[in-house]
Amino acid sequence: MSNTPVTRKLAEWIVGLQPSDIPANVQSEGVRTFVNWLGCAIGGADHETADRAIAAFTPFSGSAQASVLGRTERFDVLHAALMNGITSHVLDYDDTHLKTIIHPAGPVASALMAVAEYQPVTGEDFLAALIVGVEVECRIGNCVYPDHYDRGWHITSTAGVFGAAAAVSRLLRLDVEQTVWALGIAATQSSGLREMFGTMCKSLHPGRAAQNGAAAAFMAAAGFDSSERSIEAPRGFANVLSTKQDYSEILDGLGSRWESALNSYKPFACGIVIHPTIDGCIQLRAGLGDAVADIEKVELVTHPLVLELTGKKTPRTGLESKFSVYHSAAVALLYGDGTPTAFTDEMATDPRVIALRDRVSAEARKDVDEDAVHITVTLKDGRRIEHHVEHAIGSIHRPLTDEELDAKFLGQAVRIIGEDKTRKLIALAWTLPRLSNVAEISAACAPASSKAA
Amino acid sequence: MSNTPVTRKLAEWIVGLQPSDIPANVQSEGVRTFVNWLGCAIGGADHETADRAIAAFTPFSGSAQASVLGRTERFDVLHAALMNGITSHVLDYDDTHLKTIIHPAGPVASALMAVAEYQPVTGEDFLAALIVGVEVECRIGNCVYPDHYDRGWHITSTAGVFGAAAAVSRLLRLDVEQTVWALGIAATQSSGLREMFGTMCKSLHPGRAAQNGAAAAFMAAAGFDSSERSIEAPRGFANVLSTKQDYSEILDGLGSRWESALNSYKPFACGIVIHPTIDGCIQLRAGLGDAVADIEKVELVTHPLVLELTGKKTPRTGLESKFSVYHSAAVALLYGDGTPTAFTDEMATDPRVIALRDRVSAEARKDVDEDAVHITVTLKDGRRIEHHVEHAIGSIHRPLTDEELDAKFLGQAVRIIGEDKTRKLIALAWTLPRLSNVAEISAACAPASSKAA
Repeated sequence: MSNTPVTRKLAEWIVGLQPSDIPANVQSEGVRTFVNWLGCAIGGADHETADRAIAAFTPFSGSAQASVLGRTERFDVLHAALMNGITSHVLDYDDTHLKTIIHPAGPVASALMAVAEYQPVTGEDFLAALIVGVEVECRIGNCVYPDHYDRGWHITSTAGVFGAAAAVSRLLRLDVEQTVWALGIAATQSSGLREMFGTMCKSLHPGRAAQNGAAAAFMAAAGFDSSERSIEAPRGFANVLSTKQDYSEILDGLGSRWESALNSYKPFACGIVIHPTIDGCIQLRAGLGDAVADIEKVELVTHPLVLELTGKKTPRTGLESKFSVYHSAAVALLYGDGTPTAFTDEMATDPRVIALRDRVSAEARKDVDEDAVHITVTLKDGRRIEHHVEHAIGSIHRPLTDEELDAKFLGQAVRIIGEDKTRKLIALAWTLPRLSNVAEISAACAPASSKAA
Repeated sequence: MSNTPVTRKLAEWIVGLQPSDIPANVQSEGVRTFVNWLGCAIGGADHETADRAIAAFTPFSGSAQASVLGRTERFDVLHAALMNGITSHVLDYDDTHLKTIIHPAGPVASALMAVAEYQPVTGEDFLAALIVGVEVECRIGNCVYPDHYDRGWHITSTAGVFGAAAAVSRLLRLDVEQTVWALGIAATQSSGLREMFGTMCKSLHPGRAAQNGAAAAFMAAAGFDSSERSIEAPRGFANVLSTKQDYSEILDGLGSRWESALNSYKPFACGIVIHPTIDGCIQLRAGLGDAVADIEKVELVTHPLVLELTGKKTPRTGLESKFSVYHSAAVALLYGDGTPTAFTDEMATDPRVIALRDRVSAEARKDVDEDAVHITVTLKDGRRIEHHVEHAIGSIHRPLTDEELDAKFLGQAVRIIGEDKTRKLIALAWTLPRLSNVAEISAACAPASSKAA
């Protein structure tokens, strides 16, 4: 526990921050975070995970207040937040705060966008709320990482629900006391198990975090109270869900050190820890040419987390294949692909992929960085080709450029809403800070068959 | 972890049990559980906690599918489950599985009743689902108690969400695989911090457990999948949320040993651990007569959990006063009351109560049982009166009779729906096993001003 009123001090910062207090580079990264999230939400819109969630909740949804981006269905604000949280994460193609492996935008932006269709929100307010929400979740993540994650919590949802609550609290203009309550209502709903990785529940997590975080803010606005010390109390979030608590990570340098500026964007549609392997295998493929067909074995030397998180030897579905470094290496060598098409049910059962996948082995070594890998390919004639990736593409050292983010967006959204709409939407999304009403964006995400306002 | 497929075996039992497999005494206790829950849900219907939750969620609710019992508002099934979970627990007057301090009915019955207004359910099916749900949550509670509770989890909601999922899975006639998924979707939403005790979030917990458990079953019905081993996997519920895991508590004697038959019903509207003190003080009051005004001091010797849970010295609100053994002793001595009227905001600020409360001290001793207390009252003239409670009223050794449950129900519901309606409702509630459609009961809970169907 801490004698410092951590929750209250954080609430004071959430309430007091002015958009003009946010440095230009942090604002720019916030827009990149938004653009990347929007493309992912549309790209995941037709996944069967979303279909099934929509089928389950349609009978219970309220009025058509907000969009499922890239689909024709509209739901009440809370269910829309849920659905966009699911779709933006289901392809494992979103963003990553590398210090905590939190995927920050899903819980926060999904909640904000749904609220922004319910009450008018300017782009300036939206961006500030997004940055505040991401800052809150990443700082709470830093407070408990890595013990909390190691214990088995999916930190994107356990910390994400705080981010969503903080962000929506700003849009609702809650005062400090109400914001303390919103954080408390979020804390007591914090949940999500890593055991669910490879199943539909993984993307349910940021969906519920968005929905429950938004609900926490609406409840606090209605006077629903909570503990005043939900984060730091002896039986608060940090003590109950973690063995490590470093509250200085939450409060120190608020407003000067920006975790939200450290966000990164995935070039590949799978767990961030596989990225060096895919990056390296795609590079190797260029040199191998037709010799890819003559591979005897592939040996990887990786950071230990790679095998812990993505050690599935025989993935049966697309969702499971995202947690197989063996599958990922095989697809990257055979097809040069790490995008969503590399992780479909079809690809998981492709005989060529299975044959090569079974020739891939991996060794975990603590002296290998998380964004690095050593790859050795041995051909049937005995030749050995070695390759070292020092910093994978998409890492903080080799971030995606704005143009690469555009290409990633196009690759996801064209299939859903067509090229013309996608290009216009991308241009519009980059203007976020200057929009008078952010609902303009969600309207522009509707597929042709939709009559969404 | 366990190599036994705990989750799957539990799902097989949930799916396979026939109502006729349930022994008569277990069925009888199930009806008592239901009657007690129904009275509590109506009794808490006009609490400001419910008012605020209703104000927050009304804009987002779906169509009027199910009732908030004892109120005129109707919500979609999931929000109705939430609200009835809140109202049935908000007075801390519900039921207790003493081995785990789970309050079993709230999460399960609140979910079932909302579903029973959405699709026709016979009394026999409802009762079997209720008993199965209570059995599942109490057994999962036994698996992790006490470590899980000691760590800071509000076990009524963390285990309750499984009970609600299991119960609704039965009403939806899910198969084994779908029931495994429902338990998994429940597991990954398991949450609720003891830090929230004394705030509105405490009763939010069983509300969310009911809502999320029901949602888990509807999602599984729509094909939304989850881990197959959500309870026992290395990163499943039991390992992540507890340091103790005894899976034999979940599986051993399923269908022959019935935890649901061990349910008990609170005679007093506060934490079960204060019950011996209130019971003893009410008995002492009878002997003291006017000398109550001359009390110099009151000394309690209690089980250690009493001070840990209910050690609030200066409660400021009715909700906080439920967590003050000092307040409870004072009100019992002054007014002979332990019902909801003993724990109002007015009573928490009553000058006579505050004056006597400050004269109460308590000592924790490990050799005192949880349902026992030693009380010594010293008067201003030096006289000392000692009293020992071996088993508090409401404990498994001194259970409330059916007539006492009726009186408790009357005491709660008359104020809300009038005496005539209450008496008819009580009579109807006891006929649960023979009803052709349980929705008849929720219709009979509507206050006069309601047009509920």
